[in-house]
Amino acid sequence: MASEFTFISRYFKDLTGQQGVALGIGDDAALINMTSGQQLVAATDTLVAGVHFPSSASAEQIATRALCVNLSDIAAMGAKPKWFTVALTIPPETASPKWLEGFSCGLASVAKAFDLALVGGDTTAGPLTISITLLAEVPIDGALLRSGAKAGDCIYVTGTLGDGAAALAEITHAGDKNKVSERLLSRFYRPQPQVEIGIKLRALASACIDISDGLLADLGHICHASNVCAEINSQQLPIDPEVKANHTQQSLAWALSGGDDYQLCFTLPQNLSQQVDQWIKSGQLNATMVGHIVAANHAKQAILVDGKPANTMTRGYDHFSD
Amino acid sequence: MASEFTFISRYFKDLTGQQGVALGIGDDAALINMTSGQQLVAATDTLVAGVHFPSSASAEQIATRALCVNLSDIAAMGAKPKWFTVALTIPPETASPKWLEGFSCGLASVAKAFDLALVGGDTTAGPLTISITLLAEVPIDGALLRSGAKAGDCIYVTGTLGDGAAALAEITHAGDKNKVSERLLSRFYRPQPQVEIGIKLRALASACIDISDGLLADLGHICHASNVCAEINSQQLPIDPEVKANHTQQSLAWALSGGDDYQLCFTLPQNLSQQVDQWIKSGQLNATMVGHIVAANHAKQAILVDGKPANTMTRGYDHFSD
Repeated sequence: MASEFTFISRYFKDLTGQQGVALGIGDDAALINMTSGQQLVAATDTLVAGVHFPSSASAEQIATRALCVNLSDIAAMGAKPKWFTVALTIPPETASPKWLEGFSCGLASVAKAFDLALVGGDTTAGPLTISITLLAEVPIDGALLRSGAKAGDCIYVTGTLGDGAAALAEITHAGDKNKVSERLLSRFYRPQPQVEIGIKLRALASACIDISDGLLADLGHICHASNVCAEINSQQLPIDPEVKANHTQQSLAWALSGGDDYQLCFTLPQNLSQQVDQWIKSGQLNATMVGHIVAANHAKQAILVDGKPANTMTRGYDHFSD
Repeated sequence: MASEFTFISRYFKDLTGQQGVALGIGDDAALINMTSGQQLVAATDTLVAGVHFPSSASAEQIATRALCVNLSDIAAMGAKPKWFTVALTIPPETASPKWLEGFSCGLASVAKAFDLALVGGDTTAGPLTISITLLAEVPIDGALLRSGAKAGDCIYVTGTLGDGAAALAEITHAGDKNKVSERLLSRFYRPQPQVEIGIKLRALASACIDISDGLLADLGHICHASNVCAEINSQQLPIDPEVKANHTQQSLAWALSGGDDYQLCFTLPQNLSQQVDQWIKSGQLNATMVGHIVAANHAKQAILVDGKPANTMTRGYDHFSD
């Protein structure tokens, strides 16, 4: 079925660097030369029309969102993304040259920004679904995991929270795209995977995860994997002023459990927080301390927000429970 | 979204070997230790309900077919498959524990047979689609490519041809599964990726491809990549006697362009064919010589069958041209 991939390769080929690619698109599989001393990092994510993006989204928007969402998983590992494959399932009536060109342009622009090489995939007829596998490298034993948080660690998040949910609400309710804030539209269709920050945090963070399901759910994963609990101060949550002003009622709930933010949540031993706070002060790092890790309390709720138990199971985006 | 993958990991975990897996399912991405001196091989393939398998297929059948089809691409590279990710998109009403258990059992049985480790993926709600990315290893510069065939080389195929198309015809027309030959049902839902043969051919074959679109189409890819032409003797094509008897009219056409066989087509310099013929005679290799590579003739048709031009563009399974 690899031959069908000419659709994409026609528009895409030679648009990105080919570092380490011994054999790219065009044979039965790709051949890649790994850098010695590195571990291979692999992550797969799927986006479905009407579930992960509105059916009205443009081909370019779908492509940039799909690739950025996948990159966010790699960022959370502190890894350097290098190669990716794309499985595109598309209704024949949608697969016009214009659509495919837009899709390829979207992929190419993100691939260029992160120096990624497309190494394979396929295109098949069917309901619109995009599945991307990202391959990355990280120094052996250097990856950031969910499982290293310890009582006393500070909890940080990058960027602002709640943008993903605010964007989705505006896109869904506005109907007319002109009414959606440009900033939020860009946050939704081109989230900003924190790859550089992930790499910067390698030697420092005790645990790290990307915020795709909402801070409570994802910090809950860190707590579960590290066997600890967490306390969050809602006053400290970084929320964009525009989101706060336009969505006063919902902005805090969205910041806690809205999902789709693709920022990083990481924990840091207190003796290392000075270094990070200095980076933040000097503008080298856009992050905010939002709470602390505490010892496991064997209660059901792993996370307290302003001293009250938060239900970490309240997810903004669990597809099967919606 | 990784948390949703608990669906699969619940049924699947610990069922397969974990060779080289430093961190499996449960974090944002998997960590894999590559063997030194090896290149990474990556291939992605997608199966869509109603396109690549009948909607009536069982969860286990879908899983075995999806994984075997992907393994076939790895076999064609002469590589050793080791790790895979699964992106499962499934309608919520289909995603019963029983269905997921069947799907996981199907994956597990193929994974066990080929000593593969499942390292990640995700499950999302949507129309039934399975996208698998297989990761494999091959000694540096040892992979079998499509591009090495030279005039004078012998052309071989493994196993029998036309089984895939015969199976599809019987499944589609029979309605009642009992009327489909057990052998063909198994060929369709659990094709036999020729991984061992691919590895065995590493030092011998000048070019190799797996037959997914039909011999003419796939041998056409070898001709195109190697800038050569080919001559096939239809009398020599290996067709199962039962298929020949039950589908007298179609069996030759199916062997040439039916697709879905997932056998290997490989080329071999004449001075090496003796070694391979000996393997065939002694039962170590199930393969048949079906023709020769000839110099490029700059005509439109790259392949002659019994001396007559064959249209290599006649595909059994080009989804967009059907």
